[in-house]
Amino acid sequence: MVNVGLMGLGVVGTGVAATLLRETAPLSDVTGRPVRLKKVLVRDFSRPRDIDLPSGLLTTNAEDILADPDIHILVEVIGGTDPAEGYLRQGLSAGKHVVTANKEVMAKSGPELLALARKNGVNLLFEASVGAGIPIVGCLMNELAANDIRSIRSIINGTTNYILTRMAHQGTSFEQALGEAQELGYAEADPTNDIEGIDAAYKLTILASLAYRRPFQPSDVYCEGISKLEPQDFRYAQELGYAIKSLAIANLVDGAVQLRVYPALVPAEHMLAKVDGVYNAVEVDGSLCGQVLFHGMGAGREPTTSAVVGDVIEAARKMGGHSPPLEVRNGADLTVRPIGDLKVRYYIRLDVADHPGVLARIAQILGDGEISIAAVLQKDTQPETESAEIVITTHSAREASVRKALKAMAGLSQVRRVCNTLRIEE
Amino acid sequence: MVNVGLMGLGVVGTGVAATLLRETAPLSDVTGRPVRLKKVLVRDFSRPRDIDLPSGLLTTNAEDILADPDIHILVEVIGGTDPAEGYLRQGLSAGKHVVTANKEVMAKSGPELLALARKNGVNLLFEASVGAGIPIVGCLMNELAANDIRSIRSIINGTTNYILTRMAHQGTSFEQALGEAQELGYAEADPTNDIEGIDAAYKLTILASLAYRRPFQPSDVYCEGISKLEPQDFRYAQELGYAIKSLAIANLVDGAVQLRVYPALVPAEHMLAKVDGVYNAVEVDGSLCGQVLFHGMGAGREPTTSAVVGDVIEAARKMGGHSPPLEVRNGADLTVRPIGDLKVRYYIRLDVADHPGVLARIAQILGDGEISIAAVLQKDTQPETESAEIVITTHSAREASVRKALKAMAGLSQVRRVCNTLRIEE
Repeated sequence: MVNVGLMGLGVVGTGVAATLLRETAPLSDVTGRPVRLKKVLVRDFSRPRDIDLPSGLLTTNAEDILADPDIHILVEVIGGTDPAEGYLRQGLSAGKHVVTANKEVMAKSGPELLALARKNGVNLLFEASVGAGIPIVGCLMNELAANDIRSIRSIINGTTNYILTRMAHQGTSFEQALGEAQELGYAEADPTNDIEGIDAAYKLTILASLAYRRPFQPSDVYCEGISKLEPQDFRYAQELGYAIKSLAIANLVDGAVQLRVYPALVPAEHMLAKVDGVYNAVEVDGSLCGQVLFHGMGAGREPTTSAVVGDVIEAARKMGGHSPPLEVRNGADLTVRPIGDLKVRYYIRLDVADHPGVLARIAQILGDGEISIAAVLQKDTQPETESAEIVITTHSAREASVRKALKAMAGLSQVRRVCNTLRIEE
Repeated sequence: MVNVGLMGLGVVGTGVAATLLRETAPLSDVTGRPVRLKKVLVRDFSRPRDIDLPSGLLTTNAEDILADPDIHILVEVIGGTDPAEGYLRQGLSAGKHVVTANKEVMAKSGPELLALARKNGVNLLFEASVGAGIPIVGCLMNELAANDIRSIRSIINGTTNYILTRMAHQGTSFEQALGEAQELGYAEADPTNDIEGIDAAYKLTILASLAYRRPFQPSDVYCEGISKLEPQDFRYAQELGYAIKSLAIANLVDGAVQLRVYPALVPAEHMLAKVDGVYNAVEVDGSLCGQVLFHGMGAGREPTTSAVVGDVIEAARKMGGHSPPLEVRNGADLTVRPIGDLKVRYYIRLDVADHPGVLARIAQILGDGEISIAAVLQKDTQPETESAEIVITTHSAREASVRKALKAMAGLSQVRRVCNTLRIEE
């Protein structure tokens, strides 16, 4: 008999509890031994829930799980760092296998917790922390382990992708699309974590740590949100043959790992450009497997439950064995590449005074910075304001040079506004 | 020290040997112990190869691997049933962990070999048998194990997909596209296994056995090849909003599993319609995870090596543990649904005499069979032959009824030829 203690009975916890209670026979068949939900930690008993649990299952005292030697697997779906991280540490120290969906804790303290798991001879599994129903965490640790990972390019925040899809297809403003996402429950009342890329940065930190076998921190990820995008950026992108997607990217360049989350132009024919709505996708480019793309539901009760219960099955299967968690050593000497060293192509949109010679001045600045122009669009001349919009795409250039050039452009009297600068990820 | 014996040094074997020889340090880091290639079985020493192996590594005697108690992991990349299957059985019986890329053996004898592995307390891993670089085998066994699988829809033969992509984009004939595929090395001199769907049926058998935890046989798969497709089918499909793809599908309907491989119409906006060239894709629809799509390179030296070496790492990691291979029990009472019971939408293309009343007769036959028409296209009337082409799509209907109707249509004097009938998979 394998006993499970569940911490948290929110959206995901309810799905996990329902599955563990309903699926006892098939679970036993897959794990080779019966799996039983023994205890569920909640904050208060009185809160209404859409699940009927056998009496005696609920507790408000974490010790009923942490101190029970008969509970073999601890499942944490509380979220946030406090008290969740403390519970995880206690559980691992008490010799319990731990399954968590907690991206924030795994991003900030994952390598440390994995070391604690190894020390105590137990497993720490966290498939649900990235991509929910998409099995990317397990694949990076296991099925794709033979590869040196050249890059990971991903759409791992459904809220952002929903907003960008609305803006692209319906031409709505950012504010309007965000409002719709909030009405539909895809965005929270305070959407900062999603739209500023913080949630994606947590997930990218986890994926990069697995791919490059070296601990990274969320602060290693350069982060730009999507709130400054305007409808015309989507129109220009489309005209140039691109979609705009918020990408979370980790790649290896000259022995250093570059980590970033930002809205970028993606060629319209690329699979990542076709990921719409709340869907997520992760593209792994490996030395042997080449480009493998995973596409699926990256959030929600059922997809997250799929990942959590999958981990419970794995933990139960490995019980009694000696299958220590992955050790992350050989990437220890990899450094993090600063954003200024990024080399990609750029999309720049400017609002300029419609006077002769403006484009020449701008082109001069780019030339001085050794940034070569790939394409220029000049549109939307508005006679009443004597202003025009110029869109420039560049060939590959260094971020630091582009930033310097942008500053110089902003200083030109004819440039009213540098509206937006986006990277182009081919 | 973990010692590996490799059987076969063809395209894949060369990749595996090169990786095991080159990647010793990283492999040890991932597995927690050193991994060493100890012996390589070849058919003859004299054959030229594009790899330099340390002397003493090669042998032409299988017993040098099978009877060596110091070889812990047997890797088989010979292919075909004989002598490969005998070697696998001997290896498992001798207590070796076995990694194989052999789809034919795993499709025909997989469940039996897994039982033999369990009996001998060893692992049998076969990620490379389906989809090469796409980690679908491991994901069905592990990461997605919490799901009841509603369906698997896949493009798992790169040769066929290359030919169909050429026919769709360049309007070439089947024969011409096949010739090109052969020139490029994507198709073999005798392409039967690929273009008739036999290779895909092997792979589907393996996936279905894992998904439904019940042994299936390749003979359970209804199979149709792509050789009868004509350029106009692609034109009509496009006009109707579809792509034509050879799909390998397993799904559960009323407690029975339906298994089939055939060219089908797929909505143009669906991800599977966008899988081009030699790429493969597998879409898994699970009770919890929803639709998860895997996309990547389904053949070739490096992608297959990714899968084989991934399995070697997994086998090495599990050594000394008690992590028995998956047992397939709880799907034992699932039956196989005959193709006549399939219920999907159909595309029918007919060459008819351009006379009044033809369409009425055809519609009558469909009506008699309780098959309702969704759309009709009548085109390409050729005055000189007085013939016309009619394309009909139906709403969902039973395959047996459609076949009966097609027979009746073929019997009409005005119908010169029933050119093609394809299923529509939405």
